[in-house]
Amino acid sequence: MYGFSLLKTDKLSAARRGVLRTAHGEVPTPIFMPVGTQGTVKALIPEMLKDAGVRIILGNTYHLFLRPGHELIREMGGLHRFMNWDRPILTDSGGYQVFSLGKLRKIKEEGVSFQSHVDGSAHFLSPEKAVEIQNALGSDVVMVLDECPPYPSDFDYISKSLDLTLRWAARSREAWTDSVSESGRYQFGIVQGGMIKELRHRATASLMEIGFDGYAIGGLSVGEPKHLMREVLSYSVDWLPEDKPRYLMGVGKPDDILDAISRGVDMFDCVLPTRNARNGQLFTRSGPINIKRAEFREDKGPVDENCDCYTCRHYSRAYLRHLFIAKEILSSVLNTIHNVRFFVKLLEDVRIAIENGNFTTFKTEFMRRYEA
Amino acid sequence: MYGFSLLKTDKLSAARRGVLRTAHGEVPTPIFMPVGTQGTVKALIPEMLKDAGVRIILGNTYHLFLRPGHELIREMGGLHRFMNWDRPILTDSGGYQVFSLGKLRKIKEEGVSFQSHVDGSAHFLSPEKAVEIQNALGSDVVMVLDECPPYPSDFDYISKSLDLTLRWAARSREAWTDSVSESGRYQFGIVQGGMIKELRHRATASLMEIGFDGYAIGGLSVGEPKHLMREVLSYSVDWLPEDKPRYLMGVGKPDDILDAISRGVDMFDCVLPTRNARNGQLFTRSGPINIKRAEFREDKGPVDENCDCYTCRHYSRAYLRHLFIAKEILSSVLNTIHNVRFFVKLLEDVRIAIENGNFTTFKTEFMRRYEA
Repeated sequence: MYGFSLLKTDKLSAARRGVLRTAHGEVPTPIFMPVGTQGTVKALIPEMLKDAGVRIILGNTYHLFLRPGHELIREMGGLHRFMNWDRPILTDSGGYQVFSLGKLRKIKEEGVSFQSHVDGSAHFLSPEKAVEIQNALGSDVVMVLDECPPYPSDFDYISKSLDLTLRWAARSREAWTDSVSESGRYQFGIVQGGMIKELRHRATASLMEIGFDGYAIGGLSVGEPKHLMREVLSYSVDWLPEDKPRYLMGVGKPDDILDAISRGVDMFDCVLPTRNARNGQLFTRSGPINIKRAEFREDKGPVDENCDCYTCRHYSRAYLRHLFIAKEILSSVLNTIHNVRFFVKLLEDVRIAIENGNFTTFKTEFMRRYEA
Repeated sequence: MYGFSLLKTDKLSAARRGVLRTAHGEVPTPIFMPVGTQGTVKALIPEMLKDAGVRIILGNTYHLFLRPGHELIREMGGLHRFMNWDRPILTDSGGYQVFSLGKLRKIKEEGVSFQSHVDGSAHFLSPEKAVEIQNALGSDVVMVLDECPPYPSDFDYISKSLDLTLRWAARSREAWTDSVSESGRYQFGIVQGGMIKELRHRATASLMEIGFDGYAIGGLSVGEPKHLMREVLSYSVDWLPEDKPRYLMGVGKPDDILDAISRGVDMFDCVLPTRNARNGQLFTRSGPINIKRAEFREDKGPVDENCDCYTCRHYSRAYLRHLFIAKEILSSVLNTIHNVRFFVKLLEDVRIAIENGNFTTFKTEFMRRYEA
């Protein structure tokens, strides 16, 4: 009953329609996962997420490990119960944040030591510890600890980093005792290797030899040019097994998501809809707008007249502009609802298009309007 | 059909149970009105207010006049539509904020000139203008422009200020063209006079001679000792007509509200539940707590086990503490929901107690537990 199934594959592209059956319910794919860094998708209550059609969210292990601590969350009945979210949760391994936020970090074979960005306290994260933390959280999809090399990095650095990442992957799998079919919980490996084809190939082959319940492509959308991301993504996806879910980490913009779907990616996460909402950027089918602009001062229309979200059903652009200018908390709430719904709806439309066999047409038409 | 009716008067105190029928629905009294300063009760969507049992909210004329401007709100269909709130709204006159927030203010017979605290722009508010603004907003209960003397002030200052306030009250009534029975909209006069009995008496007599649809007691809870507030309140309420609603502005703490109800006050507003929520202070039947305290770190219980609010139904103290410490927006949302519900429920319980003829017992028992 638990497990990943492919329901349909597109004829004109590598796009796939599938379903990930987890302990907390089914996730239709392709899927977008809003980010809930510290045990909350910022500004929203779970009912708002459900109303926006959210099926799975992402939690950040690094943040929850530091505050309030995974032992506390375990004690409170796990992350789902703690944050009142009964649908699936994917958690990252903490590695990405250790390397981007942690201070005085020191990588060793055993793991990585670092100081908390919050209070400077010293911590240590190992592949086994990352599994333990995510088990304490009760995540439905658990990611292995990896190192994500910055862009650009040279071959030697990336190669050595990858070797360590692959040894960590093997240890992570060793520390994993759940089976998908019994627990409905998944452990995903992460393909690294920078922008270097032979390293990406080595990474993929090694991870598949270890054998994970799903595969993520990491180390993209880290500052490289768009064409390079797409090139690396293209072959990286092709090498992955057909019958396992594929997750492109930290992506992204609507055009990047549609491109990745056409290459066969199933899962996405990004802070774009939530973070940009708080900065006043709202996504519409005709491209993003910034709600603070004077042109919206007396605009009685909704953010996007084709949007069915709570915000668009009840509020004018003029009101949203007022809330943003007046720095009201409700601005973040209503903007986030809209942006989350925009991404969720985009993926809903994608799934329908794949089912109907017209994904490529949908993608072309969406992008024509979005970039007009 | 529109109008204020007394339904029951308490035997052992002056507490009253009534109903205010407005163009946007009925308001049972005694009632607490959460404050929605800038076209939003901070952090909450209207559904959350309704779920908390809120029947009427207060809007701040000063803030809305400056930003986004009453003409814009009129153009958008009025404040109710602008902010998506279809229940009654009471608006203050803007006077209190002009005197507390406005810069370089200059009081003349005609009105008061001041500079915006937001951008320093020059503005002028007169009794007629305050009516015009509140008409543009479409408020259900409109307050007259007054001057609220700071505490302490001397007799001469308060007396002269009161004379002007009373002349302004007459002009405000002159500028008012609605009748309650036809429009369901009310204009309230405001009793000033500092802590001086003879001035309060003069104020009340003059306002009653002008004749308003309701009467507010202003100039209390401005820093005076509690016993003085209660003394002034006591005679101030006694002089007011039985058949009109009585509103104690800016009050207050649960004990002050219960005291005022026992003296015959019908309506209350205060930023206490909303502002304190954002600072982590949560009201419970056993007194307020601060959610950031370490003792709540692993507390699985709700804020108040007797509370039926959304927050208490779904979240632990440990989670709320985590959100507050992590400075999450959701902290303000969930804390505000709880505090608003606490005040609304207190007044619901008061109304039931008055109906059942046991208000005094209720008050005593509530206070015994609250202050324990």
